[in-house]
Amino acid sequence: MNAVQGAPDMPHIEDGRVTTAGRMLDLLRTRGTLSRVELAERTGLTPATITNVVRRLIDDGLVHETGRDQQQGRGQPRRLLELNAGAWYAVGIQVDLTTTTIVVLDFAGDRIAGASLRGSGGDGPETTLAALAEHVTALLRSAGVPTDRVLGAGLVTHGPQDRERGVLLTAQPEPEWLEFPLTETLSKRLGLPVLLENDATAAAFGEQWAGAVPTDTFGLIYMASGIGGGVIVDGESYRGRASNAVEIGHVALSEGREPCVCGNRGCAQAEAGPRAVVDQVLADGDLAERLGVRGAHDTTLVDFERVARAWRGGDEAAGALLERSARWIGQAAVTLVNLFDLDTIVLAGPAFVTAGPLYRRHIAAELELRALSRTLSRPEVLISTNVDTAAAIGGALHVLRTMPIDARVPRPSADALETIPTSEGDR
Amino acid sequence: MNAVQGAPDMPHIEDGRVTTAGRMLDLLRTRGTLSRVELAERTGLTPATITNVVRRLIDDGLVHETGRDQQQGRGQPRRLLELNAGAWYAVGIQVDLTTTTIVVLDFAGDRIAGASLRGSGGDGPETTLAALAEHVTALLRSAGVPTDRVLGAGLVTHGPQDRERGVLLTAQPEPEWLEFPLTETLSKRLGLPVLLENDATAAAFGEQWAGAVPTDTFGLIYMASGIGGGVIVDGESYRGRASNAVEIGHVALSEGREPCVCGNRGCAQAEAGPRAVVDQVLADGDLAERLGVRGAHDTTLVDFERVARAWRGGDEAAGALLERSARWIGQAAVTLVNLFDLDTIVLAGPAFVTAGPLYRRHIAAELELRALSRTLSRPEVLISTNVDTAAAIGGALHVLRTMPIDARVPRPSADALETIPTSEGDR
Repeated sequence: MNAVQGAPDMPHIEDGRVTTAGRMLDLLRTRGTLSRVELAERTGLTPATITNVVRRLIDDGLVHETGRDQQQGRGQPRRLLELNAGAWYAVGIQVDLTTTTIVVLDFAGDRIAGASLRGSGGDGPETTLAALAEHVTALLRSAGVPTDRVLGAGLVTHGPQDRERGVLLTAQPEPEWLEFPLTETLSKRLGLPVLLENDATAAAFGEQWAGAVPTDTFGLIYMASGIGGGVIVDGESYRGRASNAVEIGHVALSEGREPCVCGNRGCAQAEAGPRAVVDQVLADGDLAERLGVRGAHDTTLVDFERVARAWRGGDEAAGALLERSARWIGQAAVTLVNLFDLDTIVLAGPAFVTAGPLYRRHIAAELELRALSRTLSRPEVLISTNVDTAAAIGGALHVLRTMPIDARVPRPSADALETIPTSEGDR
Repeated sequence: MNAVQGAPDMPHIEDGRVTTAGRMLDLLRTRGTLSRVELAERTGLTPATITNVVRRLIDDGLVHETGRDQQQGRGQPRRLLELNAGAWYAVGIQVDLTTTTIVVLDFAGDRIAGASLRGSGGDGPETTLAALAEHVTALLRSAGVPTDRVLGAGLVTHGPQDRERGVLLTAQPEPEWLEFPLTETLSKRLGLPVLLENDATAAAFGEQWAGAVPTDTFGLIYMASGIGGGVIVDGESYRGRASNAVEIGHVALSEGREPCVCGNRGCAQAEAGPRAVVDQVLADGDLAERLGVRGAHDTTLVDFERVARAWRGGDEAAGALLERSARWIGQAAVTLVNLFDLDTIVLAGPAFVTAGPLYRRHIAAELELRALSRTLSRPEVLISTNVDTAAAIGGALHVLRTMPIDARVPRPSADALETIPTSEGDR
């Protein structure tokens, strides 16, 4: 929405509020099929309004009728409505220092294509975005999705961000990323509108939409190269002042000492994030050699995954390091739970692919020991159902939910493409 | 709302949503006077709806017309609407181990009476509530407010609470407070509906309504005997799962070591709250004697105020202890700001009456040094405009905004009063 200019024909969101049409599309996307009567019941709108909006949605090719409800005991069976899955598509792109995940969702929110690649590494934003655009274009082509049926792309990164302007407000991972026009550049390369979103918020949003979490108020800890957090309250993302909320990686821990990139000391990320675990392995030369951990800047998650696999294979030293990390992140989770009043924490992000069960157990133990609400309800810790793709899926869902359907930016002309610096060879 | 049974005639809030009438009363309470046209502009409702609802509000004696808008350049001057300040009243009662504040607000939200008393001390809830009821009754009588014009009372305490059931979910300050039916007992004694509210949330809500904070998204640190937190996002209280959010007193601090009542170690409250400061003074016999600090359990804030006054009088040892406390609370504020994405923190609560400026300065310095958003915007720290009464005011405003006007519980009969154990003498 933010990167889009011009007056949309049928926006889902106006002034931050979901429109009537948007609410109906949301309901159909979550429920699969619904009758007009059910839509009226769930939205509280009059049957006349429902009829009018449904007619427009059918005329616009977004919704179709699909048989009748056979469950009805009396009266006429009701015609069921369903989204046209092929009406539109959306792309979600999660990019991080060490991992990139791309997903393509159809209009019904189902994943039709996906790719996992290495992250930005030491590359600058120009090179990274050029390669991303190539991958997205290739993925859409192989999935048979024409670009002019794609509503847009959700670019999902760490924060802090300025979502309105589509830039990072941090010099991480390299100074050239600070204030680089990410959404503008990627939008020109893809010929699609691009929205910027925080990785942990996107993952929490993706989990909420997947319907895998049994409550509509929960926190999420997202661990890739760094550690982020997201909170869903009553089904909506907590955004704070400017959507740079829930930076759980920078909760300073009791007894923490390590200096952090943020300038503070003892932050969860500096003490217990994947990089900290890898550094602790490297401090023991024999252990590093046994686990095959090399310690390069841009392969932190590869190394971390080696530690996790060694733990799963029974390596006690690897397990001890991961347990230490998990207990410390559990302490940060206590602060998250105490400040946001939560009883459910979801773990998502590529660092949890193998190590998830170990982290789940120790974070749950810390919460049971220390959370203020522990006597009110047993805190629950769940592993995401899309542990390594939750953020990319959330980015694409965000596009499906919020992108005005007729307000996409024009595809770039050949001229426009020539003014963009090209990728420096193959990444 | 929670303590009220039966179907209200004109509720302000239904299913957690403010009704049309409630929104108009809110606007008039904030703005003072508005014309029907302005109400239509600000609510987005049609002039016909505004006319109908205003007619009902006037018939019910809640609103009256008060002259005409002279600013209009063209057309008929518009008749202005105003709340009937004397239509209804609400009581706010903040009670804590060491302080009690009672305020009476009229329907327009203006304070017409107030009292400051000692806190619950070692007393149990029965004794405390009996004394509170006596004070409230006396205050209403001296202000000339008949009980049958009082919408209800907001009882404001520390958490965690079960607001629905009107009980504390903590054994602080004494075990007998845990699960004691606070709102039910006080409601019977007062013959009024009683709502339970968290002190820091109430203070934040009160600040928002006073219009003293220049943003509608901010955090508040509430320091009385303990330390609590509240967050307002887009003008509404952040409540989390069950309104026990923002327990900033239990953020474990980097390098923190002290055991806390919550079972954790290194919590802000245990390291740096008023009791910790008083205990540090007591550890130095000469200093304790010089400052007149005695250290009794139920006079923590009296002792803390002595330390604050000594600092203001130039006592360096007192200043050093307060500065240490302020810097540590500043670290907890960094976590609050990083997790909730805030750039404004308000300080409220009786502990800030004298020491506020010192805390403001050091908390601001910590935020400027460590908050993740420090490069985006300079974090601002403000002292509440109602530093010692913000929580009580917020409690009363909460009643004015949410209490259904015709659903008050019946006044107790003489029989009912006799079944309630009486207060054991004078407190």
